Amino acid sequence: MEKKIDRALVADCLKRRFFVIPSFEIYGGMAGLEGMEKKIDRALVADCLKRRFFVIPSFEIYGGMAGLFDLGPPGCALKRNILDVWHQHFVIHDSMQEIDASCLTPKVVLKASGHVDKFTDLMVRDVKTKLGYRADQLLEDSIDKMLQDPEMAEERKKELTHIRARAEDFTPKELHEQIQTLGIKSEYGNELSEPYPYNLMFGTQIGPSGDSQGYLRPETAQGIFVNFKRCLAFNGGQLPFGVAQVGQAFRNEISPRSGLLRVREFTLAEIEHFMDHGEGKHPGFDAIKDVKCVFYPAVNKLGDKKTQECTVGEAVERGYLGHETHAYFVARTQMFLERIGFERHMIRFEQHLPTQLAHYAADCWDAMIYCSYGWTECVGIADRSAFDLECHTRGSGENLKARVVYDKPIIEEKLVPKLVKGVIGRTFRREAGNVCQAIEGLDQDGLKAMMAKHAEKENSEVTDADGKTFEVTPAMVTISKKTIKTSGHTFTPRVCEPSFGIGRILYCLLEQSFYVREGDDEQRAVFKFKPEIASVKCAILPIYASAEFNPILDDLVRTLSRARISNKLDRSGSTIGKRYSRLDEIGVPFIITVDFDTLKDNTVTIRERDSMNQVRLPIADIVGVVSDLSIGEITFDSVVEKYGLFK
Amino acid sequence: MEKKIDRALVADCLKRRFFVIPSFEIYGGMAGLEGMEKKIDRALVADCLKRRFFVIPSFEIYGGMAGLFDLGPPGCALKRNILDVWHQHFVIHDSMQEIDASCLTPKVVLKASGHVDKFTDLMVRDVKTKLGYRADQLLEDSIDKMLQDPEMAEERKKELTHIRARAEDFTPKELHEQIQTLGIKSEYGNELSEPYPYNLMFGTQIGPSGDSQGYLRPETAQGIFVNFKRCLAFNGGQLPFGVAQVGQAFRNEISPRSGLLRVREFTLAEIEHFMDHGEGKHPGFDAIKDVKCVFYPAVNKLGDKKTQECTVGEAVERGYLGHETHAYFVARTQMFLERIGFERHMIRFEQHLPTQLAHYAADCWDAMIYCSYGWTECVGIADRSAFDLECHTRGSGENLKARVVYDKPIIEEKLVPKLVKGVIGRTFRREAGNVCQAIEGLDQDGLKAMMAKHAEKENSEVTDADGKTFEVTPAMVTISKKTIKTSGHTFTPRVCEPSFGIGRILYCLLEQSFYVREGDDEQRAVFKFKPEIASVKCAILPIYASAEFNPILDDLVRTLSRARISNKLDRSGSTIGKRYSRLDEIGVPFIITVDFDTLKDNTVTIRERDSMNQVRLPIADIVGVVSDLSIGEITFDSVVEKYGLFK
Repeated sequence: MEKKIDRALVADCLKRRFFVIPSFEIYGGMAGLEGMEKKIDRALVADCLKRRFFVIPSFEIYGGMAGLFDLGPPGCALKRNILDVWHQHFVIHDSMQEIDASCLTPKVVLKASGHVDKFTDLMVRDVKTKLGYRADQLLEDSIDKMLQDPEMAEERKKELTHIRARAEDFTPKELHEQIQTLGIKSEYGNELSEPYPYNLMFGTQIGPSGDSQGYLRPETAQGIFVNFKRCLAFNGGQLPFGVAQVGQAFRNEISPRSGLLRVREFTLAEIEHFMDHGEGKHPGFDAIKDVKCVFYPAVNKLGDKKTQECTVGEAVERGYLGHETHAYFVARTQMFLERIGFERHMIRFEQHLPTQLAHYAADCWDAMIYCSYGWTECVGIADRSAFDLECHTRGSGENLKARVVYDKPIIEEKLVPKLVKGVIGRTFRREAGNVCQAIEGLDQDGLKAMMAKHAEKENSEVTDADGKTFEVTPAMVTISKKTIKTSGHTFTPRVCEPSFGIGRILYCLLEQSFYVREGDDEQRAVFKFKPEIASVKCAILPIYASAEFNPILDDLVRTLSRARISNKLDRSGSTIGKRYSRLDEIGVPFIITVDFDTLKDNTVTIRERDSMNQVRLPIADIVGVVSDLSIGEITFDSVVEKYGLFK
Repeated sequence: MEKKIDRALVADCLKRRFFVIPSFEIYGGMAGLEGMEKKIDRALVADCLKRRFFVIPSFEIYGGMAGLFDLGPPGCALKRNILDVWHQHFVIHDSMQEIDASCLTPKVVLKASGHVDKFTDLMVRDVKTKLGYRADQLLEDSIDKMLQDPEMAEERKKELTHIRARAEDFTPKELHEQIQTLGIKSEYGNELSEPYPYNLMFGTQIGPSGDSQGYLRPETAQGIFVNFKRCLAFNGGQLPFGVAQVGQAFRNEISPRSGLLRVREFTLAEIEHFMDHGEGKHPGFDAIKDVKCVFYPAVNKLGDKKTQECTVGEAVERGYLGHETHAYFVARTQMFLERIGFERHMIRFEQHLPTQLAHYAADCWDAMIYCSYGWTECVGIADRSAFDLECHTRGSGENLKARVVYDKPIIEEKLVPKLVKGVIGRTFRREAGNVCQAIEGLDQDGLKAMMAKHAEKENSEVTDADGKTFEVTPAMVTISKKTIKTSGHTFTPRVCEPSFGIGRILYCLLEQSFYVREGDDEQRAVFKFKPEIASVKCAILPIYASAEFNPILDDLVRTLSRARISNKLDRSGSTIGKRYSRLDEIGVPFIITVDFDTLKDNTVTIRERDSMNQVRLPIADIVGVVSDLSIGEITFDSVVEKYGLFK
C-alpha cells in the first residue's frame, strides 16, 4: 500500500513541477501565450545538460569563464545535425552560395560598417573599483530587488515596473537620471559613473608591429558584404542571389547572463539575400504563401499587445511584412524551426520597434522561441536595405553596384527640360548652378506643372537643396516630350538578412525537448529529439555483459557505422533499465538489444524512446529500418505494423 | 596549315609548363621524389583559384590582410565535403566523442599548457622602424638573394646553402651570429635587434574590466584536455577513447608567406586519443596493419636521406612507429588522404627531429603532401605523452587521472622491505627520511641484491634523490616475500594526437587536382575532384537559353535538391562549350544537358568531366544515377555500359 502512495506523490510532484495551468501573471502579461500549458523547470534541465555533458561552462576545471560554454558529445552532435538540416533547408534548397570568411577583421572594415562607432552597450563603472556594469541591466536588477519589499505601495510598484520595462530604451542621460533618482550604487555600495557607450567587440593586434588593430567579427555578415563583388560575378552578374555563411562570432558582453542565451562566443548561420529595390518579389513566394505564422507587429506591441496568426501571404497583404522576399524567409524560417522539432505554438515573429533596431537595419522581424527565460530572439530577419554595401563603397572606394538589364528595354515618353544656361547664369550668377540642378531634379509632375505655367507666360518656382526658392522664367528653360529608351539600371543592391543564432536555437530546443517520464519508483528525464537531429541515432546493448555477445555487437557497430548511422554501444554491467534510462537522457531514439534469442535466430529487439514500444526483427533488416527511421522516411508505428509489437 | 602549327605550339607549351622530366636538382635533392613526374605551375593554379572564387585574400576590397583568406562557394563546399568525409572516416568509424569548445581562452589555461611561455618564434626588429621579421626566414631570404650572385665561388655557395638549411634549428645566439657575420640588415638597410622569442598567440581582453587577459586558441587540443574529466565520465570511466574537435585556431604569424600554407586563422580537425601507458595496443590495428605508407624516419633524415615504403605493421616491427596506436592513426590518415583524392606517391610520413618537436610532443610523425612549395606538413600525428594532462593537473588542481581495472586482479609474489625506523633514525638523524625513501624506492632487483648482501651479513648501499650514498646495515631493514594483489592502476593517461590542417589539405588538393586539357584552340583548366568531395555534384544546362526548357530545368533542380544533391543551373546565353569550360574550372564532375530531344522523349544527356564521355538516359533515372555516382557507389563507365555512349 505504501508503494502506491509514494507513486501518487511522485506523480503529483511531477505535475506541480512540469504541468501548470496557464498563469498569465507569471509571464508579465506578455502576448501570445494562450495555450501555453507547460512551464519549463530550468534547473532540472540544466542539471541533466551538465550531467550528460550536453553543455558545460568552458574551462570548468579552472572555475569557468563567464559567457563561454563548451558542447560535449551529445550537444555537439545535435548542433552538427541542426546545421546540416539548415544547410539542406536553405543553401541547397535555394542554390545559395556559401562562403567561409575570416573571424579576424581589420579595423578599417568595421569602422566602415559602423561597428567601431555604434556596436555598443551603455556601461557604468564603479568609480572606486572600476568594475563595469551594463547600465540597463543594473537598473533592472536594482528595481527587481526593490520590488521584493513587501511593504511597497501598489502605486510605487507599478511605477517602478514601468521604468524597468523601458530600461533598454533609455538614452544615456535618462539612464543616469534613473540611477541617480533611485539611488542605485554598485554591488560594493560605491557611486557609479555616468553611462557611456562601451564597444562590444574583442580587439586584438594583427601582426607583430603593433600598428594593425583588428577585431573578432561581431557577426559573419561583413565577410559576405566585403566579398559582394566576387559573389555577384560568381552568379554571372545576375540578381537576386543569396550568400550563406556559418561560423563563429564574438561579442564581449559586459556581464553575460541568461545562461546560454547571452554568451561571448557563438555560432551564427547567416544569409545575405541581395536583391533589386522595388517590389521585393521572390520566385519561391507562391510555394510558401500559405504557411501560417504568429505575428507580433510593432504597432501591436505599442497598442493592444495582441499577436495575430495568419499566413505569410496575408501578412504581406496586411502590410506586416514589407515584401514577398521578407515573407519568404519568415516562412522558410518557420518551416526550418518546425523541421528540427519546435512546436508551432512555441514560435512567433516579432517586429522590432524603431528604438530596438540595430544601426544597419531598416526593419527587422525576429523569430522568437518560448523558453524558460520567456520569448527569446533566436533568428533575426532584417531588411538591411543598401546600408552595408554603401558603407563599404565609401570605405574601400570599390564600386559595389549591380546592374539589372531588362528583358526588353523600357520605352517611355518623358518630359525633358533643356536649360538656357546663358539666361540662368546672367540672372542668378553664383547661384546659377543650384538653379540648374533644381530644374533638372524635377520629377515628371513638376515638369508638367512648370510647362503649364510657362505656356501661360507665367513664371514658375524651384527650390534648391538648401530650401531657397528661385523664380524661373519661360526664357530659362524649354520643356518638351521625348522618347526615352532604358535598357536597365545600376544600383547598390538591397539586402534581406535571415540570421540564425545556432546556440540559442540549440538551447531552446533542449528545453523544449525535455520531459520527465513517471517511472515505477523513479522519475526519468527524456529528451524527445526528432530522429533526424538526434545526436546518436541508435544504441546497441547486450541484455547483460557477457563475452558471447561480442561478435554480434561488434558486427552491428561496424555495419551501422559503415552505413553512416551514428551509434553508441553500451556493454557496461548496469541493468538494462539503467542503460535505457541513461540513453533516454541523451535522447537516443532507438535502442537495439541483443539477447539470448539473438544467438539462436539472429533477431534483435528495437525500442522506440517515447512510446517505449518494441519490435523484434532480423538483424539483416536493422540497417535499412534504422536508416529509414533516422531520416524520418518511415515512422516507428509502421515498423510495429510490419513486425508486430514485441511482448 | 597555320591552325595545325598553332595547336602543336600550344601543346608544346603545355607540356613545357606542366609535364617535365623529373629533375632532381630543382627539388634540392630531397628524398622520396622518385617518380614525381608533374611539376605544378603555381601561378596558373592561383589564377584559376581566384578567378573561380575558390579562395581569395580576405578583405580584398580593402587591399587584403596578410595571412587571412576567404573561401568562396567552390572552396567552401570542398572544405565542407572534406570535413564531412573526415567526420565519417574518424569520428563515426571509431565511435569517437566530438566536442565543440571555445576559441577564446583565458590566460591561466594557456599558461598551464606552456603556450604563454613557449609558443614562440624568434623575431628580430629593425632598430629604427621597429618593424618585426621572423629571424630564420630573414636569414633564409637574405641567403637566397646572395646566392643569386653569378660570380660567387662554388665553395661559398655550398657553405651558404648549408647555413640556410639549418636556419630553423639555430638558437637565438647562433642566429644573431649568422646575421652579424653575413651583414644582414632590414629591408630599409637598418641594423637589427638580437633575435628574441615572440609569442604567436593573438591576445585580447575578456570582459569590460581589463583585468582578464585572454588569447585566441592556437590549437583546438587544449579545449579537449580541459574537458578530459567529463569525457572520461561520458565514456563510463573506460580507456582508451578518442575525442575529436573541428574548429578555428589562430596564430599571429610574424610574416605570413607561402600563400595558403602559413596563415593566421585556420581550421583544425584534431583528435586526442587517450590511452593507458604500456604497449599502446589498438583494437583496430589488425584491420589496417597491411596499409602501405612511405616513411621518412628521423634517423634517415640525419643519415642517408632515403624514404622507406612499407606497411604500418612493418613500420612498428622496424621501430619507426613506437606502438600500434601511432601506427593505427598513420594508416587511417593515409586512407583518409587517398579517399579524398590524393595520389599515393604524393603522401609521405616524416618523423620530427628532436629539434623540431613542439614543447608538448614526445614524438611526432607528419603526413607530408607534395605541392609546389615542396613537401608540406598537412597532418601531425604526435605522441604528447601525458604532458598536457599533467600541466592542467598542476594548473587547476583537478585530478585528471584515469583508473584501469584489470579483468582479473594480478597476484604477484614480491619482495617488500620493512624498515626499522628506530635504527635508521638514530644512525642518520636529519637524513633518515631520505634513507627511508631511498630504500622504499628500490625496484625488485635492488631489493633482491640488498637481501643477498644482508643474508651474508654484509652492508649494502642506497643513493638518495640528491645522489648521496648511505650505508645500510642488515639491522635497518627486513626484506621478505609477500603476495601482492593488484586490481588496477591509476595514472595520467597518455595521448596520441592526429591533428589535421584542413586549409593546407584543401590547398594541396586543389593543386593536385588541377590539370590543363588541350582544347581545339584553347587550353582549359580542369579540377579533377572525386565526386564524393566535389563542391557541386552536377550542373544542369539547357542546350541554349530558351524559355521552353524552363519547366524541365526547374523540375530537375527541385528533384536533385530534394535528394540533397548539390547542383548548379546555368541558363546563361553562353555557348555550351564555354559553359562546360566554366564548370570544368570549378570541377563539377557531371553535367546534365537538356535539349530538343528532351522535349520529345524525356531523356537528357549526362557528361563526365574527365573523359568527356556522354550518355543519354531518361530523366526519371537521373536522381538515382547522379546520387550513386556522387557517393562513388557506381562509376561512370558502368553508366556508359548500361545506357551506351552518346554520339
